[in-house]
Amino acid sequence: MRNEVFKNRSHDPRIAYRGQNASRLDNLTDAVFGIAITLLIFNLTNPNSFEDLLTFTKTLPAFLISISFIILIWNEHLYFSEVYTLNDSMLAFLNTIFIALIIFYVYPLRFLTLYLTNYFFYTDIAVTIEGNQVPSLMIYYGFIAFALYFILFLFYQRAFKIKHELALNEFEVFYTSSQRWRLFIMFSIPLLSILVTLVINRYSFIWASLAGGLVYLLYTPLIIWWQIKFKSRSKAFDYV
Amino acid sequence: MRNEVFKNRSHDPRIAYRGQNASRLDNLTDAVFGIAITLLIFNLTNPNSFEDLLTFTKTLPAFLISISFIILIWNEHLYFSEVYTLNDSMLAFLNTIFIALIIFYVYPLRFLTLYLTNYFFYTDIAVTIEGNQVPSLMIYYGFIAFALYFILFLFYQRAFKIKHELALNEFEVFYTSSQRWRLFIMFSIPLLSILVTLVINRYSFIWASLAGGLVYLLYTPLIIWWQIKFKSRSKAFDYV
Amino acid sequence: MRNEVFKNRSHDPRIAYRGQNASRLDNLTDAVFGIAITLLIFNLTNPNSFEDLLTFTKTLPAFLISISFIILIWNEHLYFSEVYTLNDSMLAFLNTIFIALIIFYVYPLRFLTLYLTNYFFYTDIAVTIEGNQVPSLMIYYGFIAFALYFILFLFYQRAFKIKHELALNEFEVFYTSSQRWRLFIMFSIPLLSILVTLVINRYSFIWASLAGGLVYLLYTPLIIWWQIKFKSRSKAFDYV
Amino acid sequence: MRNEVFKNRSHDPRIAYRGQNASRLDNLTDAVFGIAITLLIFNLTNPNSFEDLLTFTKTLPAFLISISFIILIWNEHLYFSEVYTLNDSMLAFLNTIFIALIIFYVYPLRFLTLYLTNYFFYTDIAVTIEGNQVPSLMIYYGFIAFALYFILFLFYQRAFKIKHELALNEFEVFYTSSQRWRLFIMFSIPLLSILVTLVINRYSFIWASLAGGLVYLLYTPLIIWWQIKFKSRSKAFDYV
Repeated sequence: MRNEVFKNRSHDPRIAYRGQNASRLDNLTDAVFGIAITLLIFNLTNPNSFEDLLTFTKTLPAFLISISFIILIWNEHLYFSEVYTLNDSMLAFLNTIFIALIIFYVYPLRFLTLYLTNYFFYTDIAVTIEGNQVPSLMIYYGFIAFALYFILFLFYQRAFKIKHELALNEFEVFYTSSQRWRLFIMFSIPLLSILVTLVINRYSFIWASLAGGLVYLLYTPLIIWWQIKFKSRSKAFDYV
Repeated sequence: MRNEVFKNRSHDPRIAYRGQNASRLDNLTDAVFGIAITLLIFNLTNPNSFEDLLTFTKTLPAFLISISFIILIWNEHLYFSEVYTLNDSMLAFLNTIFIALIIFYVYPLRFLTLYLTNYFFYTDIAVTIEGNQVPSLMIYYGFIAFALYFILFLFYQRAFKIKHELALNEFEVFYTSSQRWRLFIMFSIPLLSILVTLVINRYSFIWASLAGGLVYLLYTPLIIWWQIKFKSRSKAFDYV
Repeated sequence: MRNEVFKNRSHDPRIAYRGQNASRLDNLTDAVFGIAITLLIFNLTNPNSFEDLLTFTKTLPAFLISISFIILIWNEHLYFSEVYTLNDSMLAFLNTIFIALIIFYVYPLRFLTLYLTNYFFYTDIAVTIEGNQVPSLMIYYGFIAFALYFILFLFYQRAFKIKHELALNEFEVFYTSSQRWRLFIMFSIPLLSILVTLVINRYSFIWASLAGGLVYLLYTPLIIWWQIKFKSRSKAFDYV
Repeated sequence: MRNEVFKNRSHDPRIAYRGQNASRLDNLTDAVFGIAITLLIFNLTNPNSFEDLLTFTKTLPAFLISISFIILIWNEHLYFSEVYTLNDSMLAFLNTIFIALIIFYVYPLRFLTLYLTNYFFYTDIAVTIEGNQVPSLMIYYGFIAFALYFILFLFYQRAFKIKHELALNEFEVFYTSSQRWRLFIMFSIPLLSILVTLVINRYSFIWASLAGGLVYLLYTPLIIWWQIKFKSRSKAFDYV
């Protein structure tokens, strides 16, 4: 019925993909994501003249940044669901919180889109923020990033716990444990950024904003370090 | 094509899952659920300043409660559809009413979300309700809960009636009949709560609100009693 | 992978269901239907007080009528797509017009929902229509019903035309031709209603509204007549 | 499980359709398309009187034109995804930009729908555009058409690059390369139209609008020329 030549291309042959076909919970999650993405930009402005249309178009670059954040999170959901499926009441519960957080993610991203558009193009879309609110805004985004990755961490945590029910093989147990570490990195950095911003904000909101932002640069070395470690260790399973 | 290791993990091996793949009626229902969940929070407020964003964020805890109610109902639909499919014109008709009720469920939940947010955080989102309206509100929510579970009861009732066409085995007939009883409990308690509230409301709206709410505590013992009975009886089918 | 016990219950064993699994065109159509159904009631009123909530609730009976019309049309799409699939560029083109008509169907249904709610409950939702506009409104609904069923008629017409490419067996050719007749009835009655309304409207708008509405009563005898004929003729294929 | 008689009717037997079943990325894209199509017309006007309903109905012809543009683009996505699937991180990245562009495509199409409706029916829906803005509008639409087809060109470009991982057979390599040329034509003409409009607009906005529009007539001969070449060359693979 289906040609399988390419289907598993980017898939690891050592992993049994339990959820290759989308379940209804996947479909529900995708519907929410689709609506969230569409509403990110819809109703922002309702262009009735050509000038309005041009102003609207200027939101495109900022919109591309916002949509990327959503797709990144969607990919994490896809990768997890493909390997383990969400056929477990605890995972279904976590998925409910995940869906709720995604919808909550849209308004701040919309806010960010408009703010960046004003910043790039000197447009006058009504968004007001003052200098001394920037640290609070960074704490805000940091908290959402933390919450989303923490839920994803709990997904892998749960998968690890029910490894016997899932009949995970040795490589899959290692993979689950590694992914858990990756998501630990993913949620720890926003948390660190929040702490740094909070502490320095007592003295100066400018330095707090700067330092809080710089913490996110830690993502690059830490994820590279994780990948090197994951690859070297996963080689041991090649001949199993 | 698909790895079946985990797919049936939480499934009962004595049941033939007729609707493991989502039908188009499932997809339509999921689309409605996805939009309902998203619109539960969207358009509530359109934050243009950082203060608005903070007010918006305060709706998160109440939103998590509201979304849980929707997901609970969605799960009931999923469980039924997985076992029996909705491939029957009577079930398709019931599903139409079910979809309509879900959409009607959103506005009261939205109302509840805003009300609870005001209650938790002393925010001033425009929602007005007075003390002597609380019993009416409880009757209102009770009625929606009753209607949704009553439709789900009719789903199982229908499945029981067409057991020959569905080729249900002995255990499945017992399972269907048991689920019918569970949903009888589920829809009776809201009904009882409505009656209690109506009767006591003649004398005092405070006692009516309290008594009407306390009735819902009956869910815990009754469902536990049902589960114990279901498990003990279902053991008889283990060696069939 | 899938239990087939019940899946084909209401299916005719003489028909090869070519589109039992939903194609992407089906999914797209379902997404549009899902949003159309949800938007039928959303944003009508935004209840902020308990009185608003009660007014909103009064739209439920009229909403159930409106949603039934949409589900009826959706069922027609499902039945066609299950038997023939929409894997043909002409059918894909017709489906585009079908989707567009569905979206156009929502606003008039919304109008009808509010009108009927005002009529049933003496609510004061702002919808204004005068007596002498009723014939125009009937022509309007008649036209939409005609257009939708005419497109569905063209679906079967197309399926009949490509019967060799579809490899339809003898019974399927008869089935396709019969369904074409059924849809001919379905689209002719609204057309007849429009004509009757137009002609009588020259003399009296009251009689025009009445006569135009009575024409729809023809559905019952004509569809029963069609069903009897279909059943008697289809028996000839039982032993093929 | 599924009758395959018709499923591959319009499919080329020399091509292995890798993505015949919709992936979750397809589902997400379809959800976005479904919402985009629905929102194209929704909220334009909210008819409360019968006159409003008639004005709304007059948008139907222009809406059919707008929806056709969206379905054309959707078909391109379907055709690509069916043959190659989107199971590649680079393609997933391109798909993100594609989704974003689709959502951005809706507002200008909505603008066009209202503009054409005013033009056809002398309605007074509030859309303002002046004669000397027509060239800018043409550049605008040209740019969106260019961007969408350019992304689709990059889809095929990517598929060509990973032909070994995709295990494309000889005919499929030829097919991919041909499709790349077709999309080169598709994105070049809007680009040419933009250039022509920009150059002539220095002298006269009337001639610029006219010339810019005439460039699109090149589509017909160029696509016919491409089809003839594709068919003649593809014959060589018939006996492979």
